[in-house]
Parts: sequence; structure tokens; C-alpha cells
Amino acid sequence: MIRIGLVGAGRIAQVHARTIAAHPEAELVLVGDPYEPAVTALAEKYGVRYCLDPDEVFADDEVDAVIICSPTPMHVDHILKAAKAGKPALCEKPVAMETETVEKLIEELKGVEHTTMLGFNRRFDPTFAKMHQLVAEGAVGNVEQVTIISRDPAAPPKEYIEVSGGIFKDMTIHDFDTARFFLGDIVSVFAVGQNLDPDLVDTGDFDAAVITLTNAEGKTATITNSRHCSSGYDQRLEIFGDKATLNGENLRADQIRVSNGQYTDAKSVYLDFFLERYEEAYARELGEFFAAIKEMRSPSTSIDDGAKALAIAEAAELSARTGKVVTL
Amino acid sequence: MIRIGLVGAGRIAQVHARTIAAHPEAELVLVGDPYEPAVTALAEKYGVRYCLDPDEVFADDEVDAVIICSPTPMHVDHILKAAKAGKPALCEKPVAMETETVEKLIEELKGVEHTTMLGFNRRFDPTFAKMHQLVAEGAVGNVEQVTIISRDPAAPPKEYIEVSGGIFKDMTIHDFDTARFFLGDIVSVFAVGQNLDPDLVDTGDFDAAVITLTNAEGKTATITNSRHCSSGYDQRLEIFGDKATLNGENLRADQIRVSNGQYTDAKSVYLDFFLERYEEAYARELGEFFAAIKEMRSPSTSIDDGAKALAIAEAAELSARTGKVVTL
Amino acid sequence: MIRIGLVGAGRIAQVHARTIAAHPEAELVLVGDPYEPAVTALAEKYGVRYCLDPDEVFADDEVDAVIICSPTPMHVDHILKAAKAGKPALCEKPVAMETETVEKLIEELKGVEHTTMLGFNRRFDPTFAKMHQLVAEGAVGNVEQVTIISRDPAAPPKEYIEVSGGIFKDMTIHDFDTARFFLGDIVSVFAVGQNLDPDLVDTGDFDAAVITLTNAEGKTATITNSRHCSSGYDQRLEIFGDKATLNGENLRADQIRVSNGQYTDAKSVYLDFFLERYEEAYARELGEFFAAIKEMRSPSTSIDDGAKALAIAEAAELSARTGKVVTL
Amino acid sequence: MIRIGLVGAGRIAQVHARTIAAHPEAELVLVGDPYEPAVTALAEKYGVRYCLDPDEVFADDEVDAVIICSPTPMHVDHILKAAKAGKPALCEKPVAMETETVEKLIEELKGVEHTTMLGFNRRFDPTFAKMHQLVAEGAVGNVEQVTIISRDPAAPPKEYIEVSGGIFKDMTIHDFDTARFFLGDIVSVFAVGQNLDPDLVDTGDFDAAVITLTNAEGKTATITNSRHCSSGYDQRLEIFGDKATLNGENLRADQIRVSNGQYTDAKSVYLDFFLERYEEAYARELGEFFAAIKEMRSPSTSIDDGAKALAIAEAAELSARTGKVVTL
Repeated sequence: MIRIGLVGAGRIAQVHARTIAAHPEAELVLVGDPYEPAVTALAEKYGVRYCLDPDEVFADDEVDAVIICSPTPMHVDHILKAAKAGKPALCEKPVAMETETVEKLIEELKGVEHTTMLGFNRRFDPTFAKMHQLVAEGAVGNVEQVTIISRDPAAPPKEYIEVSGGIFKDMTIHDFDTARFFLGDIVSVFAVGQNLDPDLVDTGDFDAAVITLTNAEGKTATITNSRHCSSGYDQRLEIFGDKATLNGENLRADQIRVSNGQYTDAKSVYLDFFLERYEEAYARELGEFFAAIKEMRSPSTSIDDGAKALAIAEAAELSARTGKVVTL
Repeated sequence: MIRIGLVGAGRIAQVHARTIAAHPEAELVLVGDPYEPAVTALAEKYGVRYCLDPDEVFADDEVDAVIICSPTPMHVDHILKAAKAGKPALCEKPVAMETETVEKLIEELKGVEHTTMLGFNRRFDPTFAKMHQLVAEGAVGNVEQVTIISRDPAAPPKEYIEVSGGIFKDMTIHDFDTARFFLGDIVSVFAVGQNLDPDLVDTGDFDAAVITLTNAEGKTATITNSRHCSSGYDQRLEIFGDKATLNGENLRADQIRVSNGQYTDAKSVYLDFFLERYEEAYARELGEFFAAIKEMRSPSTSIDDGAKALAIAEAAELSARTGKVVTL
Repeated sequence: MIRIGLVGAGRIAQVHARTIAAHPEAELVLVGDPYEPAVTALAEKYGVRYCLDPDEVFADDEVDAVIICSPTPMHVDHILKAAKAGKPALCEKPVAMETETVEKLIEELKGVEHTTMLGFNRRFDPTFAKMHQLVAEGAVGNVEQVTIISRDPAAPPKEYIEVSGGIFKDMTIHDFDTARFFLGDIVSVFAVGQNLDPDLVDTGDFDAAVITLTNAEGKTATITNSRHCSSGYDQRLEIFGDKATLNGENLRADQIRVSNGQYTDAKSVYLDFFLERYEEAYARELGEFFAAIKEMRSPSTSIDDGAKALAIAEAAELSARTGKVVTL
Repeated sequence: MIRIGLVGAGRIAQVHARTIAAHPEAELVLVGDPYEPAVTALAEKYGVRYCLDPDEVFADDEVDAVIICSPTPMHVDHILKAAKAGKPALCEKPVAMETETVEKLIEELKGVEHTTMLGFNRRFDPTFAKMHQLVAEGAVGNVEQVTIISRDPAAPPKEYIEVSGGIFKDMTIHDFDTARFFLGDIVSVFAVGQNLDPDLVDTGDFDAAVITLTNAEGKTATITNSRHCSSGYDQRLEIFGDKATLNGENLRADQIRVSNGQYTDAKSVYLDFFLERYEEAYARELGEFFAAIKEMRSPSTSIDDGAKALAIAEAAELSARTGKVVTL
């Protein structure tokens, strides 16, 4: 059994706690969070110890590995502490808000033997992961064009948007990673930012965007984002190759089609929101983390993946602000 | 060019006239119908001759082949006249309303060399015909269960129902032929008749039915009929085999999917009604008729097919009335 | 917290144990099964007590409610013991193999205050349950025709079939309950049994069947069963009403569509088999059981539902063997 | 009856001739084409006069209106001749290969009263036209993002590509018009050209492209093009609005779904190629032309639409060659 320490007791920590409870080879032993009501509730629910100082999790002898669900500004510090304590760590994305912070972290980690996984959950979504596997098996031939449609059901509160780092770092970052998952490194970015909702204009952030990415071989990825979508969380992916096309479609809570005098075969709205839509992805992400620990290998997503997605996000912001293509 | 004489100038005759006009190897030359406004309008539209006595069509020297679109009670007489005039004939279904009438016709045709095709249009529907071809090519392995859902958009007027011969001869007859198309001859029939619409009860006819057919090998066909369907003309077919399943789906006027806050991927209602839904089937039916003439062979649907579908319809009526299985 | 005792440590008991572990208001405390390796493994996995004599579960003071996952022949005895011990019980279907056994049980339970729920899991499937709710809300108007397609991926071993009680009690029983879920009590049954797989003929059982059920109002349900289906576990349901039609479709492990030179929009095969397909249904079934206990009310499925489904199964067997309609 | 003169007897002229033959209010009277075998075959098929000098069509007294299907370099001359002869004209797209040629034509037409329609057939496709109508009725709310996927089944011969004017003028021009159909005038263009097929590199043209268009209100259209697609002619359109999303899907020759041990619900490949896919659109385009003549109004697509699509194509070419955004 891998004994897990959870750093953070918030929403995503609760998702991970549930997954650990159901996992045959892992068990939760400690939760650390300065917010007492949350940490005690979580600890009680799973019958485990808790601490108010997250640092104690890294130091605890009974903890074999840690899952970092702390706020983004703490990520770099927590990743370093886990690495120095010799404990494998899974950190939720993003690593940090600025490329240079991540680069400094990568620098500091040089020479420290460590197993750090970055939680790009979509790579573990059953649909997207299977598409990736099909591509690897040659099912589509050469990947030529990637089309990503990614729209949130509704905009977060303005207060959130104002500190979010902007749509590209906050929302598109997942799509940048998905593009990299299928195309590898990106060399050129062009982004158009949109301001569709008049109420959000004064946040200074875009609430929709269209981005074109190109890799060194001239393969493209097109990303279409919006902070709102009437039908729920719209998450689609098309991989166009010279032999076949794959489409990853939205998920729904049931498999009903309704037909009446106005329309036919109408399906239910999309799962809303990411905790539901990517529930299985979060569980599989942990599966990969545990497997990497057991097999003493690097997990399939690294801090470097986080750094590269962040660099694309910064390039996209620059492109959208200047109206020019940005080369990476 | 095959020179065609049309017997009848009604709705289906107009459909055939249009198909002939567009066909490279056939041309309309004569239309015969006692109803003057209809026959003159049709003749004028296509710039052809007309006659008020349909019998003149069979006698006309310029007519190579006839298409019989007269009322059902005239079919037997017209088929015989065409056969005796040595003109290939396509007759719309049904041949007649009673099995014995058809049997008498078959008797009378013995010894008369003739090419008579019965218009079971659904066999020529692009979807159903392709399914039949796939089955013939072995795509499903052994056909084991056939499921037919066939619902009209709305009940015809009561006056029509009262003289229709009953739902099984009027409506299900097409489905009986479809069952035979995939299973061959049927040996056993069980039917449940339903009276769903209180307004139709006093017609004495059922307005919905569920029928189970079995062939000699124990393969089954299930037919579900209704005189109404909120979404239009509901015409579906499932062929279940030991290697694969084929589903033939409904047709729509466009390929739009609508997604909003209530539902997603809603499609347009079904094509309504048979002239639209089976427009292409009617054209291909004529194509088969012309090809059979040209190749001097029997057409793929015969009077015998009509007789056998009618026999099943009579068995179904008996079963629904007695609550017993009827063996053919 | 409701403290649960599990009677049985087999496959379905393990599913329930997992659900209990994840449920916020229930906890597993005891597992009883005479098969030591299974019961100790399960007890160890969840850190709970075990006993080799299932009867101890009913007697245990710490157990508030029991879930009966013992072999079918033990069900009646276990239901009675739970009832007499005053412990609410959820029993997996079927109650028993013969209608008279169930009737005797119902007789014995008279006067004993008890909460016994029968595990007809499909009623709790998110798709079927939502369809039922939509029907209750009037979304389809009057239900007129129910079409159930229910095919297993592959036949069980012959040894299983020989003691299964026959396809109608073993497999169709679920579909009979689904028909009752939407149509209420059934008054007439007609069944055609098929023997499609030559290897299974000497089991004496049918390996496929088509059944027509009618309720007192003349509404119909058509059930199409097969012991095999090339694409997996084929579980579909159509509710046809005068205002709308609902279709419940199959589930898949991902949401991929593949398009290439041979076909387009091809989806993955169906989830295979019932533990996967109805995983969520099993969890919701437990949810209903726990809710009924908490709210001190009768659960939504009763022993009576089991008795009635069993009676239909017996009528179907009789109909298929005699070729006659059977009235209930 | 509107008496039609056809200028040209090639492939698209034959499509139009067939539509005219089936149209109740138009009749073909004259075909003009210097290529004798084609013009005589077409004239004979429909029993009409022909001439080898297309100019005679414009001069003919019996011709009420002309349809210009001559090679692109003749379009401007033929449009002018029709206008000066006072005959309404429908001209196939594109008007010309260079914006300045079209502008000169528009200049010359000033002061000449004329009815000239440009054949942007996709606007008349039943699916796209209905989407446009739904948008006009407010079904999607504000249109915010348009996504166009448009891929040909296979690249044309290299000789064709070399004189085609480049992918943007030859292929994407239709998509530019579709974008304008939903977003109105475009103010900014960014295009990435791709060279995916090594065999086509030496044509000097791109064989795939991704283009982002923006209108004055900041609404976007994303176009993804490829000269090949394994599944046929891939023609899809998504209109994303704040209240709903519309998806226009591909067309197929039948409505079959195939399910077997490898995949489920596989559909047939897409209709291939534009004459099949847009067959109905061509017919409706003519319907609009005839209606405009009858109602003495301007047709819904004008030379100006041609000029504007061409200007976007030139901007896209410039953007793809320079890697810069081009403002219109």
C-alpha cells in the first residue's frame, strides 16, 4: 500500500481522497491544511490524521507520497519540499503563473532525484487517452490537424477572473497541453481574444478566444474557447490524420434521446462541470501516479509539460494583445 | 428509349412521371385516366398525349411498357390487360384486397408470357436495399432477428380507414414484405391489435399493432406499427445477425443538430410522408423496372411477393381477432 | 451512519461493498460467507469483521441493515431471517425460482413489520430511471408501446444455463420488470423461443426469444432477447407515447467516433457486461435502500415486484413451449 | 415559363439542365458552347436548340434569362453581355481570379440595370440555409463563433492546382462566403498554409490551411481546409451563439448504422463530391434565381458577394505567405 499525504483539503483534494479510498493499492494517512473546518471534516470522513501546517505532511514518516492540492502560489514551494523529502509528488496544474518561476523551480530541482507529476487531468480522460493510444497505434496515419473546442458552462465570478492570470493561463492552458499531447512542441502561436459578455469587459480579460498553434512540422491545432456555453461544459477534440479522423465527444449524465413534434433524438445537456466531466480522468491520473511510484519510473506528465503549456499561454496572451503571431 | 404509358394520373402517377422525365432511357408518351382535370394537367405538363379510357393505354402502339397507378380494385384487370397486350407492367401494391383474387390472377397469368413487377417500393429504398446487399455479402453472418418499427405520422381520415381493408393490409403489408425480404417465407404469425385513439375505435380497425413473424428456420421478425407518431413518419429497420447488427434509420430534410440549455444534438423531425421519405425508392423502383425490360429478365419483385404479403396480412388479422397464433 | 451487514462475499457483494465505502451515510461492519477465502479477503480490504455463518449477520447487534447477496436458493430463508430480526434487507433478484415459493414467503411475511427491497437494478439505471421520471412528468403523453432490446454479449457456460431456470427466469426477468416499470401489471404473454446456437440446443433452453406483453389497457411491450451480441451488452429501451418517444441507448467506455475510408462516426463497442453497464445502477439501488431506511418508508421495489416478474417468466416459458398466448 | 439559355455545356451546365427540366416554371430553350460534342449531346437530351457561339445565347429573342457556366476567364465578358442584353443572369462562382477585374466589372455595370446572381451554392444547401434561417429567427441568440470544417475527398490533378489560383481562391472561397453569410463583412484575416502531401509541394500551393477571420464586432470564424479527407467530402459548420449552438453535419448516401465486434453505429462515408453533396443546393440556387426574376427583385447573392469573398482569399494568401495578420 502506498500511504498518501494530502496537502490541501479543498474541492479537488476531496475528489482525490475519494479515489484513494476506492484504490486497492493506496491509502490516505494524513491531510494538511491551515483551514481547520475543511481539514477536520476530510480527516474525519476517511478516519485519518490531520495537521494544520501542510509542511508536516512532507516530514511525516508514515507518508510515502504526497498529492499537492494547495493554492497555486504554494505549488513551487510544496513541490520542492516533497522532492527534498524524497517523497513522490503529484501537483495540480498550473505549477506557477509565470514561466520564469517554473524555470527557477526546474533549475532548483536539478540534481535532486525526485518523482514529480503534474496533474494535466485531460490526458487521463478515457476518451482523450484512448484517442492518443489510437494515434500511437497508427489508426489515423499522420496527424495533420487538431481541432479543440473547449467552452465552460458559465463564467466564474469577476473576482476570480481578475486574479486568474487571464483566460489563456487559467482555461486554455489545458487545451495547450492537449495540443502538445498530440502535436509535441509548438513553435508558433496566433490568438484572437474576444470580449463577448459586456459585463466582463472591465475585468481586462478576454472571455473567449480562438488560437492557432503550429508545430515544427507545420501541423496545426485550432482551439476555440468561450467562458460560456448554453448546453454545459463543451469539451470536444478532433484529430484529423491522412488515414482517419477521430472525434472525442461530450459526456452526458444519461443516454436518452427524446423525439417529439419539434425535434428528434435530442440528448441531455453536457456534464457540468469539470469535477463531473473529468471525474474518471482524475481517478486515472492518480492511477498513473501510483503506478509510476510502484514501477519506480517517471510519471507521464512532468513539470516540463507544465512549463511548456505556460509558455504557450504567455505567447497567446502576447499575440492576442498585439495582433501578431508569436514564435516560441 | 422505353416508351411508357401511365395508367392513372393521381399522386403516385405524378411521382412516376417526374422520374420518367429525368430518366435517360425512358420517356412518357401517354397517360390514361377517366378523371379529365388530372389527366389533362399531367399530359400538358410533360407534353404527352392522354386518353380518358385507360384501356387505350394497353392498346397503344407507341407504348412499350405500362405503369399501373389505377385504384386497387382495377389492378387485377389492368395487370391482365398489360400481360395480354405483351407489355411489361409495373403495378403499385397491393395487387388486390383478398388472397383468392390474387390467386385467381396468378392462375390466369399461367401460360401468358409476361413481365409484371409489383411496386414494393421499400425494397428499393437506398438504406434498406443497401442493408439487404450487406446481408447478402455476409456482413451480419446469419440473420437471426429482424426488428421493424413503422409508424405513420397521423391517421388517415376515417372514411379512408373504413375502406382500407384494415391496418394489416393497408399499412403493415409493406412491413410484411420487408420481413420476407430478409427472412424469406413466413410460417407463423402472432398479432396484437391496439385501439389507442378513441376517435378511431368505431372504424372497427386497429390503429396500432405488434406482430411477431417466424420463418421455417425459427428466425423472427417483430413489427411495431402505429397510425400516429409525433415526430413524423417513423421508419426503422434492425437486422440482427450473429456477426453484426445493421440499423436503418429515419430520414430528415436537413442535417442540423441543435444544442441549447434544454437539450443537445436535437435533429429535425422525420420526413413526412411516404412520397418524401421514399422519393428515391420510387425512382429506383422504376430503374429496376426499366432495367428488367432492357435485360429481358424478371423484375426483382413479383405478383407472388404481393400474394405472400397479403396472406400474412390476412393471418395477422385473424390472429389479432382471435388472440391465437396463425400458421401459414 | 447505517451499519451494514453483507450476506455473501461474491462478485455482487464486492460491488456493494465498494459503493458502501464511498457512501457518506453508510458503513460496512460485517460480512458473512461460508467460503473463507472470499469472506476474509473482502473483510480485510474494508477493515471489517467477518463470519463464516451468514446467520450471525442477522443476529449481530452492530448491524442495522443487511444486503443479501447469497445464492438464490438461500434468498427466502435470508429474507425471512432479516425480517424477523427487524433488520431492513435488500435482496438481489430473483427472490426464488418458482412463483409458489415466493407466494409462500409473502404469506409468511404477513404480519411481520419489515422493510424488504428487491434489487431490480435496472430501475435505478440513470438512463432508465430518468426515462421513467420523464414519463411520470408527462413528457411522452400516454405510453402506448414499449420496445425492449436486451442481448447479452455471449452465452454463459452450458453448466450455468442448465441450472439457470431457463432464459425467461434468468435473463428476461429483468425486462419483464422493466415492462412493468412502464406499463404496470401485465395480463397477457406471448413468447417465441429461438435456438440459434447449435451448441446450446442440448441444454433444453432457448438462447433467444421474442416476447409480446399486454397490459389491461391494451398497451404493449415487445422484448427481444439473445444470449449473444457481437457488439457487447445490448441494452436498449424505447418508450413510445402519443406526444413523444424516448430512447434509452447503450453505454460505452469512451465517447470516440472514428471515421476513415470504410465508415464514419463509428463508436466503441458497448460496455460489457452487467457489472460495468449497471455499475451506477447498483450504486443508486443502494442509495434508494439507505434512503428508505432513513425515511422509514417502503423501498420502491418490493418482493411483490419480484413475484410478478417471476409469474410473467413462467407464463412466457409456457407460451414458448405451447405456441399459445398465456393469460395472467 | 422562364425560357433559359445555357452558356456552357460542361458538368455543372448538365446539373442545371436537369434541374430546369424538373422545374415547373422554367424551360431550357438554347445551349451555347464551342465544344460541339458536348453542346449537341446536351441539346439532344433535352430536345432544345444549340449554338457553337455562346454570344448567340445573349442575343437570342426566345431566351429570357441566361445561366453562365463558361470557364472562369469568360465570366466577366458574359456577365456584361447578359446585362447589356437586358437578360437576368446567374453566373457560377468565381466572378474572376483577381479582385481588380471584379472591381472593373462592378464599375462597368454601374448604370446598367441588371439582375445578376452569383452562384454561391452553399447558401442554398438545405442544411446551411436552414441554419441561417434559424439564426435569423433568433434561435442561437448572438452569433459569437463560427467553425467551418471543409475538406475535399482528394486533391485534384497537379495541372489543375497549378492554374487554380491557389487553395484560398479555389477552395476556401466557398468557406469565406459561408463566413460572410453568418458574420457579415470581415475585417481581419490570419491564415496558416500547410504542405502535407509531399507530392504537391512543387505546385507552389498549400494543400491545407487554417484560417481565422474576424468581423468588426470581434466575432470569429475559423476555417479548417484540407485537399484530402479519408472519409469523403467533409463539410461541416458550427454556429455558436450565446443561447444555442447549431451543427450542420455531413451527408451520406444512406442512413445505415453498422455494429459489430470492432465498432458500433458506424455510418457510411460522406457523399463524394460536390455535385452529389450539393445537388439539392444547386437546384435551390436555381429556384432563387427564377424567383428573383419572377418577383423582379435582386437575387440573394450578388457580384459584390463574389468580390468580397475574393478579397478575403487574397488577404488569406498574403497572410499565409508573410505569417502576418492582414486587415481588410
